[in-house]
Amino acid sequence: MARRELPLGRPDLPPVQPLLRTTLSKDDVKPRLLGHWGTTPGLTFLYAHLNRAIAERSQPTIYVTGPGHGGPGLVAAAYLDRTYSEVYPDITEDAEGVKRLFRQFSFPGGIPSHVAPETPGSIHEGGELGYALSHAYGAAFDNPDLLVATVVGDGEAETGPLATSWHSNKFVNPARDGVVLPILHLNGYKIANPTVLARIGDDELEALMVGYGHKPHVFVAGFDDESHEDVHARFAALLDEVLDEIADIKAKAADGDESRPMWPMIVFRTPKGWTGPDYIDGKKTTGSWRAHQVPLANARDTPEHLEVLHSWLASYKPEELFDEDGKAADDIRGLAPEGQLRMSDNPNGNGGLLLKDLRLPDFRDYGVDVPVPGGSISEAPKILGTWLTDVIRQNPDNFRIFGPDETASNRLQAVFEETDKQWNADFVGPEVDEHLARAGRVMEMLSEHQCQGWLEGYLLTGRHGLFNCYEAFIHIIDSMFNQHAKWLKVTDDIPWRRPIASLNYLLSSHVWRQDHNGFSHQDPGFIDHVVNKKAEIVRVYLPPDANTLLSTYDHCLRSRQYVNVVVTGKQPAPNFLTMDQAVAHCTRGLGIWDWAGTEVEGEEPDVVLGCAGDVPTLEALAAADILRREIPELKVRLVNVVDLMRMQDEKEHPHGLSDKDFDTIFTKTKPVIFAYHGYPWLIHRLTYRRNGHANIHVRGYKEEGTTTTPFDMVMLNDLDRFHLVIDVIDRVPSLGTSRAGLRQRMVDARLDAREYTRAHGDDLPAVRDWVWPAAAEAGLDTEVDATVATGGDNE
Amino acid sequence: MARRELPLGRPDLPPVQPLLRTTLSKDDVKPRLLGHWGTTPGLTFLYAHLNRAIAERSQPTIYVTGPGHGGPGLVAAAYLDRTYSEVYPDITEDAEGVKRLFRQFSFPGGIPSHVAPETPGSIHEGGELGYALSHAYGAAFDNPDLLVATVVGDGEAETGPLATSWHSNKFVNPARDGVVLPILHLNGYKIANPTVLARIGDDELEALMVGYGHKPHVFVAGFDDESHEDVHARFAALLDEVLDEIADIKAKAADGDESRPMWPMIVFRTPKGWTGPDYIDGKKTTGSWRAHQVPLANARDTPEHLEVLHSWLASYKPEELFDEDGKAADDIRGLAPEGQLRMSDNPNGNGGLLLKDLRLPDFRDYGVDVPVPGGSISEAPKILGTWLTDVIRQNPDNFRIFGPDETASNRLQAVFEETDKQWNADFVGPEVDEHLARAGRVMEMLSEHQCQGWLEGYLLTGRHGLFNCYEAFIHIIDSMFNQHAKWLKVTDDIPWRRPIASLNYLLSSHVWRQDHNGFSHQDPGFIDHVVNKKAEIVRVYLPPDANTLLSTYDHCLRSRQYVNVVVTGKQPAPNFLTMDQAVAHCTRGLGIWDWAGTEVEGEEPDVVLGCAGDVPTLEALAAADILRREIPELKVRLVNVVDLMRMQDEKEHPHGLSDKDFDTIFTKTKPVIFAYHGYPWLIHRLTYRRNGHANIHVRGYKEEGTTTTPFDMVMLNDLDRFHLVIDVIDRVPSLGTSRAGLRQRMVDARLDAREYTRAHGDDLPAVRDWVWPAAAEAGLDTEVDATVATGGDNE
Repeated sequence: MARRELPLGRPDLPPVQPLLRTTLSKDDVKPRLLGHWGTTPGLTFLYAHLNRAIAERSQPTIYVTGPGHGGPGLVAAAYLDRTYSEVYPDITEDAEGVKRLFRQFSFPGGIPSHVAPETPGSIHEGGELGYALSHAYGAAFDNPDLLVATVVGDGEAETGPLATSWHSNKFVNPARDGVVLPILHLNGYKIANPTVLARIGDDELEALMVGYGHKPHVFVAGFDDESHEDVHARFAALLDEVLDEIADIKAKAADGDESRPMWPMIVFRTPKGWTGPDYIDGKKTTGSWRAHQVPLANARDTPEHLEVLHSWLASYKPEELFDEDGKAADDIRGLAPEGQLRMSDNPNGNGGLLLKDLRLPDFRDYGVDVPVPGGSISEAPKILGTWLTDVIRQNPDNFRIFGPDETASNRLQAVFEETDKQWNADFVGPEVDEHLARAGRVMEMLSEHQCQGWLEGYLLTGRHGLFNCYEAFIHIIDSMFNQHAKWLKVTDDIPWRRPIASLNYLLSSHVWRQDHNGFSHQDPGFIDHVVNKKAEIVRVYLPPDANTLLSTYDHCLRSRQYVNVVVTGKQPAPNFLTMDQAVAHCTRGLGIWDWAGTEVEGEEPDVVLGCAGDVPTLEALAAADILRREIPELKVRLVNVVDLMRMQDEKEHPHGLSDKDFDTIFTKTKPVIFAYHGYPWLIHRLTYRRNGHANIHVRGYKEEGTTTTPFDMVMLNDLDRFHLVIDVIDRVPSLGTSRAGLRQRMVDARLDAREYTRAHGDDLPAVRDWVWPAAAEAGLDTEVDATVATGGDNE
Repeated sequence: MARRELPLGRPDLPPVQPLLRTTLSKDDVKPRLLGHWGTTPGLTFLYAHLNRAIAERSQPTIYVTGPGHGGPGLVAAAYLDRTYSEVYPDITEDAEGVKRLFRQFSFPGGIPSHVAPETPGSIHEGGELGYALSHAYGAAFDNPDLLVATVVGDGEAETGPLATSWHSNKFVNPARDGVVLPILHLNGYKIANPTVLARIGDDELEALMVGYGHKPHVFVAGFDDESHEDVHARFAALLDEVLDEIADIKAKAADGDESRPMWPMIVFRTPKGWTGPDYIDGKKTTGSWRAHQVPLANARDTPEHLEVLHSWLASYKPEELFDEDGKAADDIRGLAPEGQLRMSDNPNGNGGLLLKDLRLPDFRDYGVDVPVPGGSISEAPKILGTWLTDVIRQNPDNFRIFGPDETASNRLQAVFEETDKQWNADFVGPEVDEHLARAGRVMEMLSEHQCQGWLEGYLLTGRHGLFNCYEAFIHIIDSMFNQHAKWLKVTDDIPWRRPIASLNYLLSSHVWRQDHNGFSHQDPGFIDHVVNKKAEIVRVYLPPDANTLLSTYDHCLRSRQYVNVVVTGKQPAPNFLTMDQAVAHCTRGLGIWDWAGTEVEGEEPDVVLGCAGDVPTLEALAAADILRREIPELKVRLVNVVDLMRMQDEKEHPHGLSDKDFDTIFTKTKPVIFAYHGYPWLIHRLTYRRNGHANIHVRGYKEEGTTTTPFDMVMLNDLDRFHLVIDVIDRVPSLGTSRAGLRQRMVDARLDAREYTRAHGDDLPAVRDWVWPAAAEAGLDTEVDATVATGGDNE
């Protein structure tokens, strides 16, 4: 079924008279009243005042709606400034258009109740609360002329991500970045409760804002008899004052003073549902949580409520607001600025319009030398870092790296040759403030929510970036990923939305190497979480070495509208593929490593060793090495998977292999022992419809891990080389009992390795120092220039 | 492999001389130095001072270590107060014990580097940062005599969850709850960066704490030549002052003044790695981020570093701290209080010791009348609420309900007959402050992180509770769930840890009924996330109606050491099972609903309709109704699944069905059309090893949803009754082309339903008002006393 079309419906269906020219009747009311009123009047008020100021100052501005359920306010604003009719020509500027506009709202086949991708000018749906300020600052970075007016709901303000996002003002540069103007909309109530910030008194609230580094301007209206005119005059004056303060700060910064100012913010305290009915059925409504959603949900069936509804709507005097034809009156239309100064039409609200391709240096020039498989050792992200350094050099204003505190720990430290971490809190001195500067391409704050939110805001306004994070803790933003993936899916179907750069993850402190931290830092489940989202949106890559990582990331930075998850370890590990091989391998997404197997040309193998992920690849190769020595006649095929989605059916994922190709590689009937980076079930899921799926035996993470050594960790989860050999013996029918001796030796080898580890606190040297035989034979120096000790190795 | 045992190792392995009686040699240093030094001295300092005050005041206290990577400090503290040797007799109070203590730290087979479950007194591992204060307040609720001393790291303070958790002080009741004393450990640095709060100046920091509702006491030490004696004297005086302030507040509250005080908190500003080497290799170490982890990681192989290490350790004068035998000196040992006043031995740190069974009223007494299947309609959670009301009544001090803002929206409003929402921010008046009070059993703050963290703290200290939440937004705490599940798994293997009550979720605003909100509020993936954790820990229930929900929740509140996920809708929906049937059904976990099928005794069915979840069950029954009318000869079996883990193999989950039972119910060879609440893949995963798995065809959520009606929503995802009938026709070989007419009618029925929805904004009455034929025949009144309109229906 097609996803979206504007509904027409029968002409006699509600609202039959959108402009309220006669008394409302039951037939004017939709059968299902959906949406949220309480936050909407405040959003509309602020939008209108900003319009006035923008027009006067020609100040490019976007509007971020924290209380995104106030969709009606933003849709109406876009309609009144005419953007809406431009992108949805069916919604005309006349009575019929108004009717369609009203009807389609939260109506089957119509538009969502939130400030969704369908809403012109939106980069922030606000369905899940907490990210308004993070998105706003993301939009502001490298956008020096932009004002991001950001309404923070006082409900949203209770969430953790929002509570820390106020501190974003320590990361924004007053000269080189844009300005975020936070407006805390203190309407006092959530769904069924008062809000915390509305109930702590003015002194504490102002102290809180000062503590967050802001100069608060408190505006209170709607609680007394003050006329609307006076309220508007007061707010207009306040807004001018605030914008003047901002202009002063920007002017000082332009003169070279980049020190952190106390940025102004506005506390906007009004009744919830302001201008709605004070009481309904004797219960306080406006100015209470009862105004949150639909105050008169039963208006269709309750005549008294219908009357209240009519009086309420009539109080806005629609006859003064619309002309005979149902077109908004000229003075209303004239309030909005022109063209792209309209907040609904600012291209930052449709970032793909501003997107430029990155200038990408040829990643092949950054590759490592791999004379024979395993013939050199690298920390793969460190190699990636050398390339990213030049990416930064060549794209000084539209590419940033985000991470909680780990860009160096994740081995991207080379980038600090070219850039710094942007920091606008206090400095102490060069002894400790290494690579910190008022402007830089790396953004580090110990909040995964902030990193994700900033990056999303940065991407949605047409720029590029990546987020490096511990694999276990990327789950902290599971829910934010959901929302971004949903946003991308929806925008794919909206013709006027232009594609944006992909959201790229680099998870290089992964489950298998949490030597310093142990069980709490082990969780490879983000991949599982990601693959539940639409196949068109998600990509997962597990490059096994440095050259494949370079090739993968080049691809990611060129892609659009995806979420790319790249998992690769940061510890010293062998390289297996030359750059040419890596490019070919990544292009295929998976492939047979014939140098690692013992196949006979023209014959099917006896067993396939599959692997995906760097540690599993190493163990699979070590198992292949044992097998070629111990059972040389066994025809072993080794298949490495970089692009995990290749495992899935082509009907289910655009990257999926055809069944024919899959069968050619994995065979239809032979046992496949698959060593996988994450939870084993995912491989079964991806291969569920494959012919040979019943023969696939997966080893992966089983939630077994504790304080241990790297090899002991893989042993705890039965992913180690010895266990893979045991799996081969147990699964290849021709081996069976005839190899009981080898099997026993593998069992013993595991026990020996374990005992050594427990006695010495380190892995058995024979295991730890194993190298692929070709490298050993070549006598190559496989020492690594590893980042050690104080600082760089921190985790 | 067994998970944990204390390592012995060879006696000549490091540390050979733990008490530093000769100069350190290479052999005294472990080959792999792991752990985190920077935070540890501050933690130790605070612990020691608290010991002094606790002993003097006999104040029961626990210590929550936000910077949980400071495990060495807490392990050492537990060793010095002798708790450690009590629970781990192998770690004796002599040189050999000290050696074992040192050796086992972050060593294979030993203990983690964090304040993990293995650490006596810990309820907070701190591996994932952000939850120290939430856990602390959870521990304090209903614990009026307890002091929870909580160290918040300044790194952790940047996370979102921590940033909002300061506001917990608006929810704690000074008379009936315990006291949290936050100590912000401002050591200034993270892994590789300064911290934000250390770089905003004293004025902003103090304003921030005032804004958070605290009275800050700032303590600075370690940056000048002040003697240790003077530092200690100053801090002891400060701690006494703070504890006196707390005592005053408690005294006032005991006198009836329960108004919110400005609770004291301490800002503890010291150098990171205080007392460590100032410089290493010419680089500033103590007082910088370089002190974070292991400052001398290469001491084993770098003689100069070994010397530095020796001098550093010698500076603590171990000869004064330990006697000849290696036992801590009497004055050191005497610092700690006695018995359970020791923070490591407080039973709240091992909450199972304090756990009492709930007094549970017989849930059968709260059931709904179900004269025939479908013969009554309920909002299931509303029925559950009546039972929970009495649970609260009978357990007034050890059971709480947590939720962001939705306890009433989730239809548990009956509980407000008995209790209130606990709220200690300002009150305005009864018109708006409905069910708000200074003490109450319901905790609502718009932060899923807070709800989860509070509940965890409450459970870990031996109490009971549940968390009600929107299904989509429970993903916000994915990562917290991970950590709690890991905690439970580990504690299962620690003999001295006693079982605690399960963590119970109630997700009743689920994916299928987001009428007000749409796509951003649709995500059933939490179940997928949960099942990646250890089978011994996780349980998932999908009760299809009110009586099954009662029976399920009774079971959940009796269980221990699990995470129970219960998903059930809050909208009016038919009841199918009488209470007796419900109890039997829930006991089995899944079962054949013979009244719904058209089986012939003694014969295999032609097709099995499986269902799990309330909406899928309704659609499966409606499909069965169509089939019995249209193809009466078709032998249809309907199987409903309440306990999702029954689908899995008994070898993989303790609740798993045996293959024999599974085959008996689902058959080995017949098509199974399975209507499932969530992402379809999970059913394939759970049944992967079942004989008939290739015949199972699953319908579920496919990430297709937008602004629509309930039936349109299921149609968008092909989970609707008409599509299920099409699936049956397509999958039952005997039907095939002979039923092309019926198949076409089903296709047409979908199109009709869709067209009606788009024209009328509501579902086709024939679909919307469908009831199971027995109920229709009985002419029963299936009107519901639904919660409508303003307030209760808010979402």
